[in-house]
Amino acid sequence: MEPRKRSIGDTGLVRDFISGAGTARLGLVSMGEPYVVPVNFVYREGSVFFHCACEGRKHEALSSGERVCVEFDETLGTDVPGADTWYRSVIAWGEPRFVEDIPGKKRVLEMLCLKYLGESRRITDSMAEGTCVVEIPLDTVTGKENLP
Amino acid sequence: MEPRKRSIGDTGLVRDFISGAGTARLGLVSMGEPYVVPVNFVYREGSVFFHCACEGRKHEALSSGERVCVEFDETLGTDVPGADTWYRSVIAWGEPRFVEDIPGKKRVLEMLCLKYLGESRRITDSMAEGTCVVEIPLDTVTGKENLP
Repeated sequence: MEPRKRSIGDTGLVRDFISGAGTARLGLVSMGEPYVVPVNFVYREGSVFFHCACEGRKHEALSSGERVCVEFDETLGTDVPGADTWYRSVIAWGEPRFVEDIPGKKRVLEMLCLKYLGESRRITDSMAEGTCVVEIPLDTVTGKENLP
Repeated sequence: MEPRKRSIGDTGLVRDFISGAGTARLGLVSMGEPYVVPVNFVYREGSVFFHCACEGRKHEALSSGERVCVEFDETLGTDVPGADTWYRSVIAWGEPRFVEDIPGKKRVLEMLCLKYLGESRRITDSMAEGTCVVEIPLDTVTGKENLP
């Protein structure tokens, strides 16, 4: 069978792939250079949400409000005879914004707990106050896959 | 036991981690925006090597010669009671250059086969001529880990 290397658009498949990914890599520009950082995240209604420290290089790069890149990938195996790799990847972009309201921040932190800890946690107001929560509404989503 | 969240320098541990990683994420600037792409790669003597198509967005961004970011990460588990993730990540930078000589390109392509296919492959001159091979000598390497 010929491999299927193809572009995949902003479809249900892509949204499911993003939702199921464990790590997103943020592509930022910091001090005039590219800067890639891995983050835990949740994906809801076209936006990627994550939390970060309220200071430091990542926070500073996000504060500029400039469009950032968000990348997700998964290696699915190796095609030894064809010397190729089976994979799926999604590269997306959006303008980051900080979630400022406490109920909104709590919702994101609770979704993160559910995804990564596999259980509900109650987030208090002071926990939400002490962390920064970022939303990246994805305005451009491109996907690629190479499957057997 | 308190978690160990700490920076790790350019040590043997970091070099072993890079060598063993399956995927590197390149952080580029393309059309004025961050652009993150996953690549298969080999790591030798402080440089990351990979191959790419000789045209397209990635090739164009690399052709500028501007410093790029290279990121590697691994999730090692979840600390459910502490609501944290065990991980190791490395973020590095360097100025990309294209490997132009055929023997050098063949060496890289053969190393890639050995790493990803688990077996030796003979690379012909024409195979090497038809692909672009990139070296990123890493001049800055930062690592972070959070382990139990």
